[in-house]
Amino acid sequence: MTTAELLAALDRRQMPALARAISLVENRRPGAEALLSALHPRVGRAHRIGVTGPPGGGKSTLTERLVQHYRRRDRSVAVVAVDPTSPFTGGALLGDRIRMESVSLDPNVYIRSMATRGEMGGLAMATREVGDVLDAFGFDRIIIETVGVGQSELTVAATADTAVLVLVPESGDGVQVLKAGVMEIADIYAINKADRPGADRLRNEIEVMLGIRRGNAYLHVGAHHGPRTAEEPTRSPASPPARRQRDGAARWEPPCLLLAALKDDGVAELVDAIERHAADLAASGELGRRRQARMLRHTREVVDRALRQMVWEDAAGEATLQRGVERLAAGTASPYDLAREILAGLRKEMGNGHA
Amino acid sequence: MTTAELLAALDRRQMPALARAISLVENRRPGAEALLSALHPRVGRAHRIGVTGPPGGGKSTLTERLVQHYRRRDRSVAVVAVDPTSPFTGGALLGDRIRMESVSLDPNVYIRSMATRGEMGGLAMATREVGDVLDAFGFDRIIIETVGVGQSELTVAATADTAVLVLVPESGDGVQVLKAGVMEIADIYAINKADRPGADRLRNEIEVMLGIRRGNAYLHVGAHHGPRTAEEPTRSPASPPARRQRDGAARWEPPCLLLAALKDDGVAELVDAIERHAADLAASGELGRRRQARMLRHTREVVDRALRQMVWEDAAGEATLQRGVERLAAGTASPYDLAREILAGLRKEMGNGHA
Repeated sequence: MTTAELLAALDRRQMPALARAISLVENRRPGAEALLSALHPRVGRAHRIGVTGPPGGGKSTLTERLVQHYRRRDRSVAVVAVDPTSPFTGGALLGDRIRMESVSLDPNVYIRSMATRGEMGGLAMATREVGDVLDAFGFDRIIIETVGVGQSELTVAATADTAVLVLVPESGDGVQVLKAGVMEIADIYAINKADRPGADRLRNEIEVMLGIRRGNAYLHVGAHHGPRTAEEPTRSPASPPARRQRDGAARWEPPCLLLAALKDDGVAELVDAIERHAADLAASGELGRRRQARMLRHTREVVDRALRQMVWEDAAGEATLQRGVERLAAGTASPYDLAREILAGLRKEMGNGHA
Repeated sequence: MTTAELLAALDRRQMPALARAISLVENRRPGAEALLSALHPRVGRAHRIGVTGPPGGGKSTLTERLVQHYRRRDRSVAVVAVDPTSPFTGGALLGDRIRMESVSLDPNVYIRSMATRGEMGGLAMATREVGDVLDAFGFDRIIIETVGVGQSELTVAATADTAVLVLVPESGDGVQVLKAGVMEIADIYAINKADRPGADRLRNEIEVMLGIRRGNAYLHVGAHHGPRTAEEPTRSPASPPARRQRDGAARWEPPCLLLAALKDDGVAELVDAIERHAADLAASGELGRRRQARMLRHTREVVDRALRQMVWEDAAGEATLQRGVERLAAGTASPYDLAREILAGLRKEMGNGHA
């Protein structure tokens, strides 16, 4: 099937064509970039929701609920489930997908698991590209579910427009261990299994943390507001949920919601919060800014990926490196000498017009 | 000062030349790679010790003690203190260094802080290169101290021959949150402030975890051992500290030591364990394998860094990218189109022999 034929089949919204396009992109087979390039003008209508958090937070149950709620609101939904932490959880993810059977037969729902292979940067990139295919295909909402709270998962979560961090009451002690970057990435905090003890305490901790952050932020954003003191409440009861910044745009204040996905308690409110965030992003112009930054980053990564392919494979850099191992060990060549040889190989390859 | 002059001054073991060489390398100034390349044949005599762990573990006190103990054993020591988590801790690190005053006037001790700047990959690379300069200068032991337990700190810790993970009794709850990769990287576990409650419990948890890992490992290494059951003790009292693998080489079993660095309790035992690990690595051939793998990785990173410099700066890729922003947003050019233009710029630059 040529790229043109595949594009035509995607236009007719044929599900087998979608599966084929995603495989093409995920496995980086020839034609993947041509397809993505052709789809580019259609990308940008879907809202992408990242669902991230430590293992055991009930994220896949929550994702299934989100899908059900979106379907009731007549939105089509695609789910991309990513497990960057382990190459061995294929079974677990499959199990999760089976648990999603309530929605898996709906033609307006598409569920896809992505396995880890190779380095993480590549997975985040592939997730973004698979999201682009689903977006261009016409899904209204795309949920990107990742397990874990490390740098890798954050990189994947950063491919979304709205990041939801899912915690459980037991995460309380862990929150202090989480690096600041993990907590800051979230647009919405969701404490799942909130019918267990400790949910209120965790919410309180998160809100204190957010209050401190906001206090600090004001020092930079508008010094005429004056620094906020620790005693001042972070939000007076009468104030609206979003404050106005100096440029008049609303500033999103991440809400912290309590829910119990298994019982479907609080999930509708989470969907409301996501939709409010989507509207807020669009109204403030932040959506455009985020997507532009994402496209620039993606372009940089496409270039870097192509260069790596050129130097290590096309120009046989890996072979040159392996041939140099003994000289490196003997001290007769330095890593810098070997690097020069590898780059000379690339220069020759590019000069021949092969790369 | 030319590279040759700097090399001659390093040969005469002049401290100002060392400081100058490190600055050159850390700031990637012209001549840095030529210097490192010239030093390469002298690299490989020092043993590098990574000291990593969550904040508040007393790592800098422990590092100071390690330096004192090594000086008593007549070893020269260099310390590279890295804080990847924050660009704002220059003061804190400086404070730590002042606390090290007991050793800072000793001419056989060299202490250097490295600040975060730019992306983490770059910091790990620079740490490795600064380690190479100190190694070539003739220090017997190089201690690389990093704060934190994220992927970034692990990348820095991976530049060492022996990785020491420093925990405190209060880390107990956090250990479960730590990703498996963090716990696995350590060659030695050190529970500092072990005079506080909870130290034995934490050691027990770590040993259970290591026992399970070993049990799993045996399933792969030698199936004829049979799977280990949960009830079986991880080590019988009479068994030696290192088991024999099928190939006859000793397999290092990471010890878990209790200590109180402030009181200098247990630090000598930690130094003994580090030296035992160094001897073990050398005897099993693992030291050579680790260092070879590190040199290969370093060569790859030197190539990738040079390519990024060529494409984004020399060939004005960043300018091409910024000029394309509007076409990207309008959908008239895809990231893949723009990437092609940027790569064409590189090809031209390389063809001209400029890059």
